[in-house]
Amino acid sequence: MAVNPHHQPATATLAFAQRSSIAQVEEGTVLAPKFDAAGLITCVTTAADSGELLMVGAMNAEALTLTIQTGEAHYWSRSRQVLWHKGATSGLTQKVVEMRIDDDQDAVWLRVHVQPGANSPPASCHVGYRSCFYRAVDAETGALRFVENNKTFDPQVVYGDAPNPTLL
Amino acid sequence: MAVNPHHQPATATLAFAQRSSIAQVEEGTVLAPKFDAAGLITCVTTAADSGELLMVGAMNAEALTLTIQTGEAHYWSRSRQVLWHKGATSGLTQKVVEMRIDDDQDAVWLRVHVQPGANSPPASCHVGYRSCFYRAVDAETGALRFVENNKTFDPQVVYGDAPNPTLL
Repeated sequence: MAVNPHHQPATATLAFAQRSSIAQVEEGTVLAPKFDAAGLITCVTTAADSGELLMVGAMNAEALTLTIQTGEAHYWSRSRQVLWHKGATSGLTQKVVEMRIDDDQDAVWLRVHVQPGANSPPASCHVGYRSCFYRAVDAETGALRFVENNKTFDPQVVYGDAPNPTLL
Repeated sequence: MAVNPHHQPATATLAFAQRSSIAQVEEGTVLAPKFDAAGLITCVTTAADSGELLMVGAMNAEALTLTIQTGEAHYWSRSRQVLWHKGATSGLTQKVVEMRIDDDQDAVWLRVHVQPGANSPPASCHVGYRSCFYRAVDAETGALRFVENNKTFDPQVVYGDAPNPTLL
Protein backbone atom coordinates (compact mmCIF):
# COMPACT_ATOMS: atom_id res chain seq x y z
CA MET A 1 0.00 0.00 0.00
CA ALA A 2 1.22 3.48 -0.78
CA VAL A 3 2.53 5.56 2.06
CA ASN A 4 0.23 8.47 2.75
CA PRO A 5 2.21 11.55 3.69
CA HIS A 6 -0.82 13.63 4.58
CA HIS A 7 -2.67 11.76 7.24
CA GLN A 8 -2.24 8.87 9.58
CA PRO A 9 -4.23 5.97 8.14
CA ALA A 10 -7.17 4.77 10.19
CA THR A 11 -6.58 1.45 11.90
CA ALA A 12 -9.02 -0.09 9.49
CA THR A 13 -7.28 1.10 6.32
CA LEU A 14 -7.32 -1.71 3.80
CA ALA A 15 -4.04 -3.36 2.92
CA PHE A 16 -4.27 -2.94 -0.82
CA ALA A 17 -2.39 -5.44 -2.94
CA GLN A 18 1.12 -4.85 -4.21
CA ARG A 19 1.32 -4.07 -7.91
CA SER A 20 3.34 -6.96 -9.29
CA SER A 21 2.75 -7.06 -13.06
CA ILE A 22 0.88 -5.33 -15.85
CA ALA A 23 -1.21 -8.48 -16.35
CA GLN A 24 -2.23 -8.44 -12.67
CA VAL A 25 -3.08 -4.73 -12.74
CA GLU A 26 -4.95 -4.69 -16.06
CA GLU A 27 -6.50 -8.15 -16.29
CA GLY A 28 -6.72 -9.27 -12.68
CA THR A 29 -9.44 -9.24 -10.05
CA VAL A 30 -7.38 -7.81 -7.18
CA LEU A 31 -7.64 -4.16 -6.19
CA ALA A 32 -4.09 -2.78 -6.44
CA PRO A 33 -4.52 1.00 -6.71
CA LYS A 34 -1.70 3.27 -7.83
CA PHE A 35 -1.40 6.30 -5.57
CA ASP A 36 0.66 9.18 -6.93
CA ALA A 37 3.68 10.80 -5.28
CA ALA A 38 1.34 12.71 -2.96
CA GLY A 39 -0.44 9.49 -1.94
CA LEU A 40 -3.55 10.29 -3.98
CA ILE A 41 -5.71 8.63 -6.63
CA THR A 42 -8.14 10.51 -8.90
CA CYS A 43 -11.86 9.92 -8.29
CA VAL A 44 -14.56 10.71 -10.85
CA THR A 45 -18.09 10.87 -9.43
CA THR A 46 -21.22 10.67 -11.56
CA ALA A 47 -24.94 10.60 -10.81
CA ALA A 48 -26.09 6.97 -10.99
CA ASP A 49 -29.50 7.93 -12.39
CA SER A 50 -28.63 10.56 -15.02
CA GLY A 51 -24.99 9.76 -15.74
CA GLU A 52 -24.13 13.44 -15.19
CA LEU A 53 -20.55 14.12 -14.11
CA LEU A 54 -20.84 15.67 -10.66
CA MET A 55 -17.24 16.23 -9.59
CA VAL A 56 -13.63 15.13 -9.84
CA GLY A 57 -11.83 14.64 -6.56
CA ALA A 58 -8.87 12.89 -5.01
CA MET A 59 -8.69 10.07 -2.48
CA ASN A 60 -5.86 8.96 -0.25
CA ALA A 61 -5.73 5.37 1.00
CA GLU A 62 -7.90 6.19 4.00
CA ALA A 63 -10.57 7.92 1.91
CA LEU A 64 -10.67 4.99 -0.52
CA THR A 65 -10.93 2.54 2.36
CA LEU A 66 -13.70 4.49 4.09
CA THR A 67 -15.62 4.82 0.83
CA ILE A 68 -15.53 1.04 0.35
CA GLN A 69 -16.32 0.30 4.00
CA THR A 70 -19.12 2.82 4.56
CA GLY A 71 -20.68 3.07 1.10
CA GLU A 72 -20.46 6.87 1.27
CA ALA A 73 -17.98 8.93 -0.73
CA HIS A 74 -14.91 10.13 1.14
CA TYR A 75 -12.20 12.26 -0.46
CA TRP A 76 -8.93 13.92 0.41
CA SER A 77 -9.41 17.68 0.20
CA ARG A 78 -6.30 19.04 -1.49
CA SER A 79 -7.23 22.66 -0.78
CA ARG A 80 -7.97 22.08 2.90
CA GLN A 81 -5.55 19.15 3.38
CA VAL A 82 -8.03 17.08 5.36
CA LEU A 83 -9.98 13.85 5.02
CA TRP A 84 -13.33 14.88 3.63
CA HIS A 85 -16.56 12.98 4.21
CA LYS A 86 -18.59 14.57 1.44
CA GLY A 87 -21.80 16.02 2.88
CA ALA A 88 -20.61 16.05 6.50
CA THR A 89 -21.34 19.79 6.66
CA SER A 90 -24.12 20.16 4.11
CA GLY A 91 -25.90 16.83 4.56
CA LEU A 92 -25.46 16.29 0.81
CA THR A 93 -23.82 12.88 1.18
CA GLN A 94 -23.10 10.62 -1.79
CA LYS A 95 -24.31 7.01 -1.46
CA VAL A 96 -22.20 4.72 -3.61
CA VAL A 97 -24.21 2.64 -6.07
CA GLU A 98 -21.17 1.26 -7.85
CA MET A 99 -17.41 1.74 -7.68
CA ARG A 100 -15.19 0.99 -10.65
CA ILE A 101 -11.46 1.12 -11.25
CA ASP A 102 -9.64 1.80 -14.50
CA ASP A 103 -7.18 -0.28 -16.51
CA ASP A 104 -3.98 0.78 -14.75
CA GLN A 105 -5.81 1.30 -11.44
CA ASP A 106 -4.89 4.94 -10.98
CA ALA A 107 -8.45 6.28 -11.15
CA VAL A 108 -11.73 5.40 -9.43
CA TRP A 109 -15.24 5.95 -10.77
CA LEU A 110 -18.07 6.34 -8.25
CA ARG A 111 -21.68 6.15 -9.42
CA VAL A 112 -23.69 7.73 -6.60
CA HIS A 113 -27.10 8.79 -5.36
CA VAL A 114 -26.74 12.23 -3.79
CA GLN A 115 -28.86 12.66 -0.66
CA PRO A 116 -30.83 15.83 0.07
CA GLY A 117 -29.44 18.08 2.78
CA ALA A 118 -31.24 19.99 5.53
CA ASN A 119 -31.19 23.14 3.41
CA SER A 120 -30.91 21.81 -0.14
CA PRO A 121 -32.13 19.30 -2.69
CA PRO A 122 -29.43 16.90 -3.90
CA ALA A 123 -26.38 18.74 -5.28
CA SER A 124 -22.61 18.25 -5.23
CA CYS A 125 -20.94 21.59 -6.00
CA HIS A 126 -19.83 24.00 -3.27
CA VAL A 127 -20.84 26.95 -5.48
CA GLY A 128 -24.45 25.74 -5.24
CA TYR A 129 -24.89 23.90 -8.51
CA ARG A 130 -25.93 20.27 -8.98
CA SER A 131 -22.68 19.48 -10.80
CA CYS A 132 -19.31 21.20 -10.56
CA PHE A 133 -19.35 21.18 -14.37
CA TYR A 134 -22.06 23.83 -14.76
CA ARG A 135 -20.32 25.67 -17.61
CA ALA A 136 -19.61 24.61 -21.20
CA VAL A 137 -16.70 25.87 -23.28
CA ASP A 138 -17.82 27.35 -26.59
CA ALA A 139 -15.98 25.59 -29.40
CA GLU A 140 -15.71 28.72 -31.54
CA THR A 141 -14.80 31.41 -29.03
CA GLY A 142 -13.51 29.49 -26.01
CA ALA A 143 -15.93 31.51 -23.83
CA LEU A 144 -17.90 29.83 -21.06
CA ARG A 145 -21.67 29.39 -21.14
CA PHE A 146 -23.74 28.40 -18.12
CA VAL A 147 -25.45 25.03 -18.63
CA GLU A 148 -27.14 25.15 -15.22
CA ASN A 149 -28.94 28.46 -15.15
CA ASN A 150 -29.93 28.41 -11.50
CA LYS A 151 -28.15 27.27 -8.37
CA THR A 152 -29.70 24.38 -6.47
CA PHE A 153 -28.80 25.90 -3.12
CA ASP A 154 -27.44 29.09 -1.58
CA PRO A 155 -23.87 28.36 -0.40
CA GLN A 156 -24.18 30.97 2.35
CA VAL A 157 -27.15 29.10 3.84
CA VAL A 158 -25.56 25.65 3.50
CA TYR A 159 -21.93 26.41 4.35
CA GLY A 160 -22.15 29.67 6.30
CA ASP A 161 -18.73 31.21 6.72
CA ALA A 162 -16.71 28.10 5.86
CA PRO A 163 -13.72 29.08 3.70
CA ASN A 164 -14.15 28.67 -0.06
CA PRO A 165 -12.02 25.69 -1.19
CA THR A 166 -11.20 27.19 -4.60
CA LEU A 167 -7.54 28.17 -4.96
CA LEU A 168 -6.32 30.69 -7.50
CA MET B 1 -1.11 30.74 -19.10
CA ALA B 2 0.76 28.08 -17.19
CA VAL B 3 4.26 27.31 -18.28
CA ASN B 4 4.47 23.87 -19.76
CA PRO B 5 7.70 22.20 -18.77
CA HIS B 6 7.16 19.15 -20.98
CA HIS B 7 6.67 20.40 -24.48
CA GLN B 8 7.16 23.51 -26.55
CA PRO B 9 3.72 25.03 -27.08
CA ALA B 10 2.46 25.16 -30.66
CA THR B 11 2.43 28.62 -32.15
CA ALA B 12 -1.34 28.53 -31.98
CA THR B 13 -1.58 27.73 -28.26
CA LEU B 14 -4.39 29.80 -26.79
CA ALA B 15 -3.47 32.53 -24.34
CA PHE B 16 -5.74 31.47 -21.52
CA ALA B 17 -6.90 34.19 -19.13
CA GLN B 18 -5.10 35.01 -15.91
CA ARG B 19 -6.88 33.80 -12.77
CA SER B 20 -7.65 37.02 -10.93
CA SER B 21 -10.37 36.24 -8.38
CA ILE B 22 -12.56 33.43 -7.08
CA ALA B 23 -15.63 35.22 -8.48
CA GLN B 24 -14.04 35.32 -11.94
CA VAL B 25 -13.02 31.65 -11.82
CA GLU B 26 -16.26 30.29 -10.38
CA GLU B 27 -18.95 32.63 -11.69
CA GLY B 28 -17.36 34.11 -14.82
CA THR B 29 -17.54 33.30 -18.51
CA VAL B 30 -13.82 33.40 -19.25
CA LEU B 31 -11.78 30.23 -19.59
CA ALA B 32 -8.98 30.50 -17.01
CA PRO B 33 -7.78 26.94 -16.46
CA LYS B 34 -5.60 25.99 -13.50
CA PHE B 35 -2.70 23.81 -14.58
CA ASP B 36 -0.90 21.94 -11.81
CA ALA B 37 2.80 22.09 -10.99
CA ALA B 38 3.49 19.76 -13.92
CA GLY B 39 1.54 22.00 -16.30
CA LEU B 40 -1.41 19.59 -16.49
CA ILE B 41 -5.18 19.68 -16.02
CA THR B 42 -7.36 16.59 -15.45
CA CYS B 43 -9.69 15.57 -18.27
CA VAL B 44 -12.69 13.27 -17.80
CA THR B 45 -14.08 11.82 -21.03
CA THR B 46 -17.55 10.28 -21.30
CA ALA B 47 -19.57 8.84 -24.18
CA ALA B 48 -22.03 11.52 -25.31
CA ASP B 49 -24.72 8.95 -26.12
CA SER B 50 -24.59 6.58 -23.14
CA GLY B 51 -22.97 8.77 -20.49
CA GLU B 52 -20.46 5.98 -19.80
CA LEU B 53 -17.14 7.12 -18.36
CA LEU B 54 -14.56 6.17 -20.97
CA MET B 55 -11.28 7.43 -19.53
CA VAL B 56 -9.53 9.94 -17.30
CA GLY B 57 -6.54 11.68 -18.83
CA ALA B 58 -4.42 14.79 -18.51
CA MET B 59 -3.98 17.76 -20.82
CA ASN B 60 -1.25 20.35 -21.01
CA ALA B 61 -1.98 23.77 -22.46
CA GLU B 62 -1.20 22.59 -25.99
CA ALA B 63 -3.50 19.55 -25.72
CA LEU B 64 -6.33 21.70 -24.37
CA THR B 65 -5.81 24.23 -27.15
CA LEU B 66 -5.73 21.56 -29.86
CA THR B 67 -8.85 19.92 -28.46
CA ILE B 68 -10.74 23.21 -28.64
CA GLN B 69 -9.37 24.11 -32.06
CA THR B 70 -9.76 20.74 -33.80
CA GLY B 71 -12.80 19.29 -32.03
CA GLU B 72 -10.89 16.05 -31.42
CA ALA B 73 -9.56 14.99 -28.02
CA HIS B 74 -5.86 15.56 -27.42
CA TYR B 75 -4.13 14.61 -24.18
CA TRP B 76 -0.70 14.71 -22.60
CA SER B 77 0.52 11.15 -22.13
CA ARG B 78 2.12 11.04 -18.70
CA SER B 79 3.54 7.55 -19.24
CA ARG B 80 5.03 8.33 -22.64
CA GLN B 81 5.64 12.08 -22.00
CA VAL B 82 4.31 13.15 -25.40
CA LEU B 83 1.39 15.08 -26.82
CA TRP B 84 -1.23 12.46 -27.63
CA HIS B 85 -3.84 12.82 -30.33
CA LYS B 86 -6.17 10.06 -29.16
CA GLY B 87 -6.78 7.63 -32.00
CA ALA B 88 -3.77 8.69 -34.09
CA THR B 89 -2.52 5.09 -34.05
CA SER B 90 -5.76 3.13 -33.72
CA GLY B 91 -8.13 5.38 -35.69
CA LEU B 92 -10.35 5.45 -32.60
CA THR B 93 -10.53 9.25 -32.44
CA GLN B 94 -12.86 11.07 -30.05
CA LYS B 95 -15.02 13.79 -31.63
CA VAL B 96 -15.94 16.39 -29.04
CA VAL B 97 -19.70 16.96 -28.70
CA GLU B 98 -19.37 19.24 -25.68
CA MET B 99 -16.56 20.47 -23.45
CA ARG B 100 -17.24 21.63 -19.90
CA ILE B 101 -15.06 23.07 -17.14
CA ASP B 102 -15.56 22.73 -13.40
CA ASP B 103 -16.08 25.33 -10.67
CA ASP B 104 -12.42 26.07 -9.92
CA GLN B 105 -11.38 25.34 -13.53
CA ASP B 106 -8.91 22.59 -12.72
CA ALA B 107 -10.77 19.82 -14.55
CA VAL B 108 -12.27 19.44 -18.02
CA TRP B 109 -15.17 17.20 -19.04
CA LEU B 110 -15.34 16.02 -22.65
CA ARG B 111 -18.51 14.43 -23.99
CA VAL B 112 -17.43 12.60 -27.15
CA HIS B 113 -18.47 10.37 -30.00
CA VAL B 114 -15.77 7.74 -30.46
CA GLN B 115 -15.08 6.93 -34.12
CA PRO B 116 -14.54 3.38 -35.37
CA GLY B 117 -10.99 2.43 -36.27
CA ALA B 118 -9.66 0.40 -39.18
CA ASN B 119 -9.55 -2.70 -37.00
CA SER B 120 -12.11 -1.99 -34.30
CA PRO B 121 -15.58 -0.72 -33.47
CA PRO B 122 -15.56 2.41 -31.25
CA ALA B 123 -13.58 1.89 -28.03
CA SER B 124 -11.28 3.99 -25.85
CA CYS B 125 -9.18 1.64 -23.71
CA HIS B 126 -5.73 0.43 -24.77
CA VAL B 127 -6.46 -2.97 -23.19
CA GLY B 128 -9.23 -3.45 -25.77
CA TYR B 129 -12.31 -2.53 -23.80
CA ARG B 130 -14.88 0.15 -24.64
CA SER B 131 -14.20 1.97 -21.37
CA CYS B 132 -11.07 1.97 -19.24
CA PHE B 133 -13.42 1.36 -16.30
CA TYR B 134 -14.29 -2.23 -17.22
CA ARG B 135 -14.09 -3.56 -13.66
CA ALA B 136 -16.27 -2.87 -10.62
CA VAL B 137 -15.04 -3.06 -7.02
CA ASP B 138 -17.17 -5.40 -4.89
CA ALA B 139 -18.42 -3.47 -1.87
CA GLU B 140 -18.18 -6.48 0.45
CA THR B 141 -14.88 -8.04 -0.51
CA GLY B 142 -13.02 -5.31 -2.39
CA ALA B 143 -12.42 -7.80 -5.23
CA LEU B 144 -12.76 -6.72 -8.85
CA ARG B 145 -15.49 -8.01 -11.14
CA PHE B 146 -15.44 -7.56 -14.90
CA VAL B 147 -18.36 -5.41 -16.09
CA GLU B 148 -17.34 -5.70 -19.74
CA ASN B 149 -17.03 -9.40 -20.39
CA ASN B 150 -15.49 -9.20 -23.83
CA LYS B 151 -12.90 -6.93 -25.34
CA THR B 152 -14.03 -4.74 -28.23
CA PHE B 153 -10.72 -5.16 -30.04
CA ASP B 154 -7.50 -7.11 -29.91
CA PRO B 155 -4.73 -4.73 -28.76
CA GLN B 156 -2.13 -6.72 -30.67
CA VAL B 157 -3.99 -6.12 -33.93
CA VAL B 158 -4.67 -2.43 -33.25
CA TYR B 159 -1.41 -1.39 -31.57
CA GLY B 160 1.06 -4.04 -32.71
CA ASP B 161 4.25 -3.86 -30.71
CA ALA B 162 3.71 -0.35 -29.29
CA PRO B 163 4.81 -0.26 -25.63
CA ASN B 164 2.05 -0.69 -23.05
CA PRO B 165 1.46 2.69 -21.36
CA THR B 166 0.57 1.18 -17.97
CA LEU B 167 3.20 1.85 -15.29
CA LEU B 168 3.55 -0.25 -12.16
